[in-house]
Amino acid sequence: IRESKLGDSSIDLGEYRHYMLKEIFEQPKAITATLEGRLAQHQVLSCLSGLNPMAVLAQVEEIQIIACGTSYHAGLIGRHWIETYTDIPCHVEVASEYRYRRQPKRKNLLLITISQSGETADTLAALEKVKQSQACLASLTICNVMESSLTRESDLSLMTMAGPEIGVASTKAFTTQLVALQLLLAALIQAQQGETPVSRQLVADLAQLPQLVQQVLALNPVIETLAERFVEKHHALFLGRGEQYPVALEGALKLKEISYIHAEAYPAGELKHGPLALVDSEMPIIAVAPNTALLEKLKSNLEEVRARGGELYVFACKTANLVPNEQMHVLELPPVPDLLAPIVYTIPLQLLAYHVAILKGTDVDKPRNLAKSVTVE
Amino acid sequence: IRESKLGDSSIDLGEYRHYMLKEIFEQPKAITATLEGRLAQHQVLSCLSGLNPMAVLAQVEEIQIIACGTSYHAGLIGRHWIETYTDIPCHVEVASEYRYRRQPKRKNLLLITISQSGETADTLAALEKVKQSQACLASLTICNVMESSLTRESDLSLMTMAGPEIGVASTKAFTTQLVALQLLLAALIQAQQGETPVSRQLVADLAQLPQLVQQVLALNPVIETLAERFVEKHHALFLGRGEQYPVALEGALKLKEISYIHAEAYPAGELKHGPLALVDSEMPIIAVAPNTALLEKLKSNLEEVRARGGELYVFACKTANLVPNEQMHVLELPPVPDLLAPIVYTIPLQLLAYHVAILKGTDVDKPRNLAKSVTVE
Repeated sequence: IRESKLGDSSIDLGEYRHYMLKEIFEQPKAITATLEGRLAQHQVLSCLSGLNPMAVLAQVEEIQIIACGTSYHAGLIGRHWIETYTDIPCHVEVASEYRYRRQPKRKNLLLITISQSGETADTLAALEKVKQSQACLASLTICNVMESSLTRESDLSLMTMAGPEIGVASTKAFTTQLVALQLLLAALIQAQQGETPVSRQLVADLAQLPQLVQQVLALNPVIETLAERFVEKHHALFLGRGEQYPVALEGALKLKEISYIHAEAYPAGELKHGPLALVDSEMPIIAVAPNTALLEKLKSNLEEVRARGGELYVFACKTANLVPNEQMHVLELPPVPDLLAPIVYTIPLQLLAYHVAILKGTDVDKPRNLAKSVTVE
Repeated sequence: IRESKLGDSSIDLGEYRHYMLKEIFEQPKAITATLEGRLAQHQVLSCLSGLNPMAVLAQVEEIQIIACGTSYHAGLIGRHWIETYTDIPCHVEVASEYRYRRQPKRKNLLLITISQSGETADTLAALEKVKQSQACLASLTICNVMESSLTRESDLSLMTMAGPEIGVASTKAFTTQLVALQLLLAALIQAQQGETPVSRQLVADLAQLPQLVQQVLALNPVIETLAERFVEKHHALFLGRGEQYPVALEGALKLKEISYIHAEAYPAGELKHGPLALVDSEMPIIAVAPNTALLEKLKSNLEEVRARGGELYVFACKTANLVPNEQMHVLELPPVPDLLAPIVYTIPLQLLAYHVAILKGTDVDKPRNLAKSVTVE
């Protein structure tokens, strides 16, 4: 049994005012712990516990990811990565929906569950359902708690080493789930094709990640100031495209959970099919704009918003050439490899939600109506 | 060439104040026109134009649906039906996302596009992309305009006979798309398995549909009164489970588009994973509750909302035994077959959006910032 390096001391608040802020700032350490002992110079080392993990991964022909809430967002990003960098079709579904509908049979299916606690009731029930029907090659859980129900019930486990997460709004658990999905992606490629340029690139990128997250955390004071502009707002729209759409979903969920502002995310290309009607000067729009192939498309979506009088807040790559103006505030992030962008761009959205909630005076670590682990259906 | 029975007279407003209301009330007629000549006593007759449609359908092993906005919601419901009643895996994706990412190869793939106008730029571009890569068995479009780009570019067409739709917020186009998806489902079953109890049931259910929609339209005065409760609201949550989740998405989109109220839909089982934090006395919750296998699950989700002080508006089956109270308003609908529920339960949500918008004084047929057909990217 491996234990998180963060140990028991991580349940003290230390210098931080709230667990959530502490956990946001612990992300470089949590990511480092999740990578530790798992990266060699050009490849991912064994990161899975269970019987013959590489032999299992070699046979996978289809992947189904099941999760809830924040973990579901991690799954959506994982799907993008898997379908972009392997030939394996990958499906993602909310556990409470998946478990109650008929599933098509799939050959050599790897069932992946994602849950911080490993006790999420709907996710566990979905896993049980698939196991009872013997409809998968193997089950794998990405989980943060070693002795949890999901790790016990799954054939394979990939542990995130985030340490205890106390804040109800998940932060370091989410980013380490993304790291785990990248480790899994590299392991899948290695198992099916051996070391490839993509798997090498993944390993090289991951090694840079803690340092990049640290750099972005330095934006904290700027975001604290920015948060003042949201205190009086009742709504927000979050936009992203491709693998940044789930980042927008996660940003919106954080703001909802702790500031009680009604935030909603859209893939930016869908704006014109309805939500643009909501846009006026009272509806702030937050966009994530790393310098990827979709940047120019996103820019034209932002132009549509600006033309309708919307106020834009764009977290953008320094190299994206977004010129700020009265209606568009730009917060610059350092250039990051495409594969790391979803992880890095999540950080400022976490900080934004935190500071808006502080200004609104909500109970950040224990928002109303929510529990940390949803252990009942 | 078949022409809609609705003819040119349908562009007159007649007794109606707005095109949207006229088009909502035209739905029994539009559905009848879409079914006309296509149903025999126990089977669906040829409803597809193009080369050897039944031979093509017989070979289909996988389906990909691509659409935007309201048509995307129709696709989500279609997916539920296809995966519930056939063994064919079905995937649905927003066109602006689909066209810009790498797609896994799929064997004997039927590519289905859905668009009222047949000119939606992202949907057309996604079709072109798939055709260029020769990555599908055949393309099929569900479309309301005979000589449109999508019908020209697709191997097969299944026309909805909704007649011209003038209101920007789609109503009769959506419900006739759902009817078309059911015709297609029955045709798929017939092509692959011959006449089965399910395909017979589908045909029998469809024959009842215009009459059921007519019954539900009689709720109009009740919904007009109910709408007064929403005029001062800035938010709303729409809940559904299973194939009713996309109905909730469509209800939320209608309210957004024409009343500018920030409405968002959730699969009800996801509430506890975040959005429940938004619930207070200022946040009305609208739920669709036909008497299906998921009814009891939905009821317990509604109880969670009630316990947090939320005000519920439930469109429920007469037989659902939902007891109204101070916090829960219940609007009863007649019992409907499971397969028709998504179509029937859409109607009151369209009427609700219409009456709220009227009370708010917006331009119902031409909401701000939106165009009827999105012919640019």
